[in-house]
Amino acid sequence: MTSFGRVAARIDEARLWDRHEALARAGATARGGVDRQALSDEEIAAKRILLGWAGAAGLEAATDPIGNFFLRLPGREPALPPVLTGSHIDSQPTGGKYDGVYGVLAGLEVVEAMRAEGIRPRRTVEIVAWTNEEGSRFAPGMMGSEAFAGVRPLDAILPVADAAGVRVEAELARLFAAFPEMAVRPLGFPVAAYVEAHIEQGPELEAAGRQVGVVTGIQGKKTWKVAVHGEEAHAGTTPRRRRKDALAAAAAMIAAMHGAIVDADDVVRFTVGRIAVEPNAPSVVPATAVFSIDLRHPDGATLDRFGATVERLCADHAGPCTVAVTPLVDAAPLIFPAAMQEIVRTTAERLGLSPMALPSAAGHDARNLHIICPSGMIFVPCAGGISHNEAEATLPADLAAGARVLAEVLVQLAERA
Amino acid sequence: MTSFGRVAARIDEARLWDRHEALARAGATARGGVDRQALSDEEIAAKRILLGWAGAAGLEAATDPIGNFFLRLPGREPALPPVLTGSHIDSQPTGGKYDGVYGVLAGLEVVEAMRAEGIRPRRTVEIVAWTNEEGSRFAPGMMGSEAFAGVRPLDAILPVADAAGVRVEAELARLFAAFPEMAVRPLGFPVAAYVEAHIEQGPELEAAGRQVGVVTGIQGKKTWKVAVHGEEAHAGTTPRRRRKDALAAAAAMIAAMHGAIVDADDVVRFTVGRIAVEPNAPSVVPATAVFSIDLRHPDGATLDRFGATVERLCADHAGPCTVAVTPLVDAAPLIFPAAMQEIVRTTAERLGLSPMALPSAAGHDARNLHIICPSGMIFVPCAGGISHNEAEATLPADLAAGARVLAEVLVQLAERA
Repeated sequence: MTSFGRVAARIDEARLWDRHEALARAGATARGGVDRQALSDEEIAAKRILLGWAGAAGLEAATDPIGNFFLRLPGREPALPPVLTGSHIDSQPTGGKYDGVYGVLAGLEVVEAMRAEGIRPRRTVEIVAWTNEEGSRFAPGMMGSEAFAGVRPLDAILPVADAAGVRVEAELARLFAAFPEMAVRPLGFPVAAYVEAHIEQGPELEAAGRQVGVVTGIQGKKTWKVAVHGEEAHAGTTPRRRRKDALAAAAAMIAAMHGAIVDADDVVRFTVGRIAVEPNAPSVVPATAVFSIDLRHPDGATLDRFGATVERLCADHAGPCTVAVTPLVDAAPLIFPAAMQEIVRTTAERLGLSPMALPSAAGHDARNLHIICPSGMIFVPCAGGISHNEAEATLPADLAAGARVLAEVLVQLAERA
Repeated sequence: MTSFGRVAARIDEARLWDRHEALARAGATARGGVDRQALSDEEIAAKRILLGWAGAAGLEAATDPIGNFFLRLPGREPALPPVLTGSHIDSQPTGGKYDGVYGVLAGLEVVEAMRAEGIRPRRTVEIVAWTNEEGSRFAPGMMGSEAFAGVRPLDAILPVADAAGVRVEAELARLFAAFPEMAVRPLGFPVAAYVEAHIEQGPELEAAGRQVGVVTGIQGKKTWKVAVHGEEAHAGTTPRRRRKDALAAAAAMIAAMHGAIVDADDVVRFTVGRIAVEPNAPSVVPATAVFSIDLRHPDGATLDRFGATVERLCADHAGPCTVAVTPLVDAAPLIFPAAMQEIVRTTAERLGLSPMALPSAAGHDARNLHIICPSGMIFVPCAGGISHNEAEATLPADLAAGARVLAEVLVQLAERA
């Protein structure tokens, strides 16, 4: 077995940074961010870039029926379940260069370092880019890891359509056509362990002056689609008593929830991020208003209590309209296995870093892998905690520090019997 | 001069009804309405149908720099300013078959009746279809009549863009290219009088069992564009104290205005019909929310008072965001000249109808013509007062009754010295 720290020493900070810049050109926005939504042309372009690097590094590429991308370094004992690392490369419509991308490129950098060091691990190491983690184009997100882990059947995902009516199924066909020579493996396989590196997307590591975070778990999350139905009418002639104004009702619901879903510690996260009104014309009373709700809290009971508030306030403020509150995601808070937290912590300490334990406020694909194998996460800082924003920023040295921890964690996991 | 009632007797109820049905095929929607927004392909198609009928009736067609369509029956003394009648053929995105269309087709029917009766009026009679009355695609509306009457300079209208960024100027070029043989006259000319027939778009005539309304005036209207600017952020990680949630602020404003802009008599009309949120993704705190406000009241002082409430409540509820409240339309209530109301009323009475005087709750192009010439309006009933809705409906007999009144009013006005 390679002695501790030799693979970490091969991590190339400049290459890792440059690859983030290169991948950010696929879907680059004018304000320095990326718009590379799931299964878009921009994401296909990014996958083509990834495949170029993987080919040069001698990795085997494969996909699966939901379009997850796997880059494989075969181990000495290829019959053993592999160690998996990665994240996603799709982005929000106005996303940054690091969210998701870092986990994939850090994995690739680790494999480059293993090859540079001349080691071949006992278990196969696979880098994965999961399909549609973000869920901004096709909701809800984490489709790739949910399908892989058996959380949601493929049949329930394929018909999902974006705002333009384009279905996941059609975009997957386009993806497979773009990479005709890539093997399509069956969905899901035994995994020895999963480790995901990610920017924190919050302010804690930066505030504490730490380069590496040991992620203890992921806060719980509930999402809903709220559909308010009223009746369209002329804005100039229709008296209030005859109106069924869907946007007026939706605004009352949203305002009431923002007033009620608060806590003294500022821990609960409540967001209405999307709304669509029909016919959405200035002089027509709105007939329908459909909006999204995203609610998160690290404590399961508190999350449930606020969830009940959401459903009650939507019903209370419907006025003359009807409202349908449809739950989409209901993910309880989770804690990663102590052994997975421990290996990240001790590895970081042995590398001379001062890791900090913290929960993840954002959801990640590791949530789904946690169901089928021992899983853990490594965080690196994120400037000002700003993410899901074109201004998302981080430091080359922090990305490299996290990749070094990932490298030595993967070396250890891949040597286990 | 033709004796009273002879042109009215030539009004062909079936032809008038059938032409409404035929025109509704340009932009027909699945639910029986029309989507024929200003300067769209659908509106061009409708103008082509109109031109076919006008050509068969021997009318001269012309347009002007804002794309208003004129169909001209030359008078015996063509140097005299013409009598103008008409309305618009653009629709809301989910509009009905009669809003605007009726005024144009009733005018055409009157000219057909004059020809059938073999009369040629002293003054030229022109039928007009004004450009973009509705304002749903390009806001604010009434562009054609505003430009014609000199209310808004052409230079201020041409750069206006729709939600896709397409400018009025580009769509006008497309319109002119579609009708290369049509004369383009200069903008505006002296008009002897303007009479606009329209469905009421309110419930009063139907409730009173009357076929014809003498429109006394138009209620005042103010519109604004409200732009709320916050900051996009990750929905899972960003604490409330760091958020600048533009939709939360917009919802608070809208809810507060719906709570405050009410009156015991249910006369004030307050509508937020359109909202656009960016980036509009479920797990991103909204960075911007832009919404429309439409406020109407028949009393000028009351309208001003509620207008001040709008501006105050938007400022009060901005929270950590910034807000810009931009006035778009500020149209004071107006009263049509007594002589124009009188000629409609007496003509209807002589035809054996029982006209009812009522104000218009909706805005109409007659508002702008009122500035440059004696103007008036004729209303016909509208089922349930429902308009700006695909379910908009009316009766063939009511449309014909209004056209008979219009015919005899135009005969009288066109014979005046």
